[in-house]
Parts: sequence; C-alpha cells; structure tokens
Amino acid sequence: MPLAYNFSAGPAAIPEPVLLEIQRDLLNYKGSGTSLMEISHRSLDFVAIAERAEAALRKLLRIGEEYFVLFLQGGASLQFAMVPLNLSQAGDTVEYVNTGAWSTKAIAEAERIRTVHVVASSSTDVPEFDLWSRTDDAQYLHFTSNETISGVQFDRYPTSVGVPLVADMTSDFLTRPVNIGNFGLVYAGAQKNAGVAGVTMVIVRKDLCRIAGKDESHYLNYRIHGQSGSMFNTPNTFAWYVAGLVFEWLINEGGVDEMERRCQEKSRLLYDVIDQSDLYDTAVESSFRSKVNIVFDIANESLADEFTKRAAAANIINIRGHRSVGGFRASLYNGVSIEAVHALVEHMKSFEKEFA
Amino acid sequence: MPLAYNFSAGPAAIPEPVLLEIQRDLLNYKGSGTSLMEISHRSLDFVAIAERAEAALRKLLRIGEEYFVLFLQGGASLQFAMVPLNLSQAGDTVEYVNTGAWSTKAIAEAERIRTVHVVASSSTDVPEFDLWSRTDDAQYLHFTSNETISGVQFDRYPTSVGVPLVADMTSDFLTRPVNIGNFGLVYAGAQKNAGVAGVTMVIVRKDLCRIAGKDESHYLNYRIHGQSGSMFNTPNTFAWYVAGLVFEWLINEGGVDEMERRCQEKSRLLYDVIDQSDLYDTAVESSFRSKVNIVFDIANESLADEFTKRAAAANIINIRGHRSVGGFRASLYNGVSIEAVHALVEHMKSFEKEFA
Repeated sequence: MPLAYNFSAGPAAIPEPVLLEIQRDLLNYKGSGTSLMEISHRSLDFVAIAERAEAALRKLLRIGEEYFVLFLQGGASLQFAMVPLNLSQAGDTVEYVNTGAWSTKAIAEAERIRTVHVVASSSTDVPEFDLWSRTDDAQYLHFTSNETISGVQFDRYPTSVGVPLVADMTSDFLTRPVNIGNFGLVYAGAQKNAGVAGVTMVIVRKDLCRIAGKDESHYLNYRIHGQSGSMFNTPNTFAWYVAGLVFEWLINEGGVDEMERRCQEKSRLLYDVIDQSDLYDTAVESSFRSKVNIVFDIANESLADEFTKRAAAANIINIRGHRSVGGFRASLYNGVSIEAVHALVEHMKSFEKEFA
Repeated sequence: MPLAYNFSAGPAAIPEPVLLEIQRDLLNYKGSGTSLMEISHRSLDFVAIAERAEAALRKLLRIGEEYFVLFLQGGASLQFAMVPLNLSQAGDTVEYVNTGAWSTKAIAEAERIRTVHVVASSSTDVPEFDLWSRTDDAQYLHFTSNETISGVQFDRYPTSVGVPLVADMTSDFLTRPVNIGNFGLVYAGAQKNAGVAGVTMVIVRKDLCRIAGKDESHYLNYRIHGQSGSMFNTPNTFAWYVAGLVFEWLINEGGVDEMERRCQEKSRLLYDVIDQSDLYDTAVESSFRSKVNIVFDIANESLADEFTKRAAAANIINIRGHRSVGGFRASLYNGVSIEAVHALVEHMKSFEKEFA
C-alpha cells in the first residue's frame, strides 16, 4: 500500500518532509556517529536541537521573553492538574468555559483541588463572551480552543477578561495566529500539530509560576522546569527533536498565517460537501465549526460501514468519529495535504451519488 | 563519520537492528500506509504494538498477572513522587537505602510528603543488609539497584524485608535476572536499556495500588493507568513501540541471563584494565562495582582532555563522567557491543603506554 490519506485525530499526520528527514538521520545524526535518540539530553548536539526548537516556536508565535516555553511529558491531561496547581492556591476559585469533552475533563481535574466556576457551557457552539457568567475573584479563566470530539472551535479568542487567560490549544495549535501576549498560559500536546505524542508545549508567563506547594512533586512545578530549560530530568528528546523539525517546516511553509489559510481552504471543501448534501450532516453551529476536526454523520447510519470500507479502498483512513460519539471525523491538521482532502471530497460525493 | 562506539550514560546506545527496523518502517508501518507515529494509540495497529511490548516484557522477567505493567510518562523522577503517593498515605513512614545521587533524589522527593527513614547510606558500596537500621512501621523499602553517577550496584537484592520492596532499576533494567515476585514495585526509565527517553516502565503489584488521594491528579494514580492499560491519556506511542522492539531483540538474543553474561564480560574487560593500571583508578568497592556504568579517574587529571580527544579520534564517544563528579564513565548497557568495549580497552592501554 502506498502512503495513505490519513485523517487521524491524533496522533496524526506528520508532514512528509519531516518524516523523511527523521528517517534519513535516524542512525547517524548529522554525521555524529550515533542516532539522535542515543545521546544525552545534555550533550551539545541535543542542547542545540532543543534551543533551535524553542527559538522556532518563539518565532512562529512571536513569544516574548516574559514567557517560559516548556517541553514537558504527561500530555495535556497532566496540564489539567498542573494549571490549577501552579496558577492558584488551595481555596482559590478558577473559571472554566465548557464547550465539550476536553473542557469537561479539564474541569473535572481542576475540581479535585480548587473551586471551579463554569462561566458558560455548550456542546454545539461557543457561548457569546458577553453572556459569560463571571465571578469577581477567580485566579484565571480557562477554555479549550478547539474540541476535537465534537468539532467546536472558538472563532476568535476573548481578550481583556481581567484575569490570566489560559487555553488548551492542543488540537488547533499552530493552525492559526494567536496573540500570546493576551494569554497567561497556552498548552498543547504535540501529537496533532507538532509531531509525535509524548511532549506537551507549555507557554506560560513567568510571573504567574507560583510554587505548586511544598507537598507537590517537583515535576508538577512550572518554575522548576522553566529554570532548568525543561531539563529538570530527562525530557522526551525524540519528540522534542521532531517538534523542532515541524516548527522549522512550518516557518518554511509560511508560518501560522499560511496554515490558517490552508485550514480554511481544506475545511471549506468538506463543509461545502456536507452543506450541499442530503446524506451528510453536522451538528455544529456554522460560526463555530472546527477548521481542523470536521465532524459529520451519515443520515442513514446503516451505510457507515460501507462508507468506511469504500474510503479505505480509495486509500482514505482514520475517518471514524471518536468512540464516544460515533459518526465520522476528518482531522485536517497541518500535516494533512490538500490532495488528501480532495480525495475525501471525491469519495463523499461519489458515495452520495451511489447511495443517497 | 561511521557509527561511533557510543558509551553514553543515557539516553544511550540502542541495538543497531532495532534502529534499522525503526528506520525501515518509519514512513509506512508494515504496509499500513502511515507512519507508526501518525496513528491513534487506540488504533488496532497500535494496540497490537502495545500488547506485544507488554507481553514481551512479561516474558523477559516472568511477570505474573498479579502485577500491572505500566508505560508512563514523566521519567523515573515522576516515579519518585508517585511511589510514596500510591504506596503509602499521609503520616506514614517509608524506608529508603541511600547509595548515591539517584537514591538521594528519590529520598528528597518522598520527604516532601512522607516521613522518610533512611536505613543505610554509603557512596562507594552497598551497606550489608543485616546492618540496615529498620523501623517497625514502614509501608515499603526503596533502593536504587544501580547508581549511574558513582557506579555502585547492588550485587544481589534483599529478600524478605517484611514490607513491599521497591526498586528504581532504570540503569540496570534487563541487564540481569530479577525475581519480580520479591518486589512490590520496580520502575525503570527506558532511555538506558529499553530504547528512547519518554516512557517509564512501572511493574507494580495490583493490590498495592491505593488511591493516591482525592486531591491528586489522576495522572499520578497507578490504578487508573493500570485499569486503562496505560491509555488513560495519549501515551508516548513511539517510545512504547521502540521499547517493544528492544524487548523482542532481547528475547532473540537470549534474554536477561545472556545480558547478564555479556555485562559481566564487558565490564570485566574494563575493570581489568583499571586494576592493572597505575594511571586509571576507581573508588568503588570491588563487590559493588557497577557492570553497566564503569566509573574511573585518571591519576593525572591534566591528561583528561587528551584522553577524550584521542578517544574521539578512535571513534569512541560519550565517556566523560557526570558533570557533578567529573572523571570518566563508560556505560555498557545492552545496546553497547563487545566490539565497542574492545575499542575502548585498546584506547586505554595505548594511552597509558604513551602517557603513564
């Protein structure tokens, strides 16, 4: 089988030039005589890789020196705990917007240690900012910029909310511009738009990094990671390296403005098919439809298996919806080419012609 | 430069057949059309990889069904916190043996949340088991089977200590047989003997996994990881895959008995040079000399740079000691070939002939 059109929701498609570079250098990194995977995180070669990756990310998002840029393990799920631990104290109230499954998980984790005030909830759109029910004494306000399971995405970001703004951007990280200066903290697992699973980027304003408390593991403390350049202990060197390659690829391709343009183009192709169809449907309010996770159903559920089977025959894979909701989902992260989307469009159209 | 003789202390040498297989399958895993790095951890392909890796590890160490075998992120350093969180409660006493830098770190982390009783301390040997100062009410006893920085290794393991025995085996994991049934918990970061950084194997008796407390992150809870097959959240899929390849390579090579034989052979070659030399020296008591981290000094410290430079000219790299102690260290993990050791022996002998 040749390379497939891979719409996986994560871990997800990686740009082919990045995979080719990894493959080429795998046994003998830049003539060093060893694999990049076989050297100390404190070696000159790896420190150069780490610094280059951080510099590329700072360039892509214009991140100022007042922010730490951390490369941590444990996924966004560990951040669900680290955010309240580091940005608030026992007894504090923290605010969350709930727009779906990942917001719900972040809230559940925060509720274990803090008083959580949910300012707004919806599963099919983003509630209007002006209607959010705010409190006076929250330490931060958290939202999930894109819900991968339901396909709900913030069309724009709130500003001037009066407290540090925190966002889980795992699924639309680097697919659109973001003014980091408006945020206290942004985090994103790498496995959707920045390479492989096992490293999470945390961009956090240094002055917000309080001690997590004397009872907490050092690993849960942003300041410790920040002061050690994310080398408090052995980091995930391979994932950090891959993230750096992706960042540099992104810069060469035109940066986040170009990625936003591509996401708009790719997602429009699919939403147009859905909107012009009697067979396909999506539940998401049109202004808040995700440009990276196109979630849709087939009117006649009994056709779902046939739809998947014919997709596979056309070399299109990983299009089933999340196991908790069923249906279909095509993820259009930066590693997914326009050709892949055209292939899926053709499949959807010809399938509808035959079965609708 | 051809492939080097790489004595890195970690991340460290990976068996060449494993690297070649990773490279071969990198873009198109087993004809699936995508890289192994680009598929969901819940996909059939990855679940098969994950299960095969766990089965291979269970086979290598004959691990019974009464143990969880977890593949977690955060390194051994996060285990320093998770062990006391999961195996004891607030107010409990826990016992630790201190044989060097890594024991000291594990103790410091445990002391943040529990009363730590150090049963014995030494930096150049392992104190006799009979002389350990025990308490009556500890929840477990923790030791570090091999200290990578000082090169001190337990020559045998304690048994029947009356409480669950816990060991950080990161640096000699799978280099020798171990009767897991004697342990409550064994953990090991992968980056020395089981592939790449970013995944830590935790082998823990299921009945010891208590709730870590309502205030703790779900990520810190062994039972949650155990019950979800280490897929509570997205695991480090690539590192898990590489670990599985290493486990299968180990089985094909003859398992841990053969690895022990090789470590003895490889380490003896170096210790013989050191013992027969006036130039090289080691501070470790002979019974407790590590078979995986051969730590030595040069009598005339001014020769250190020349020693390193000439080593590099002979294609021998990563032999400097840990930055905290200086000197030299040759790490002989399973991925290091006997040819590499012969090359180092030749270098040490010829260097002494010229400079001693």
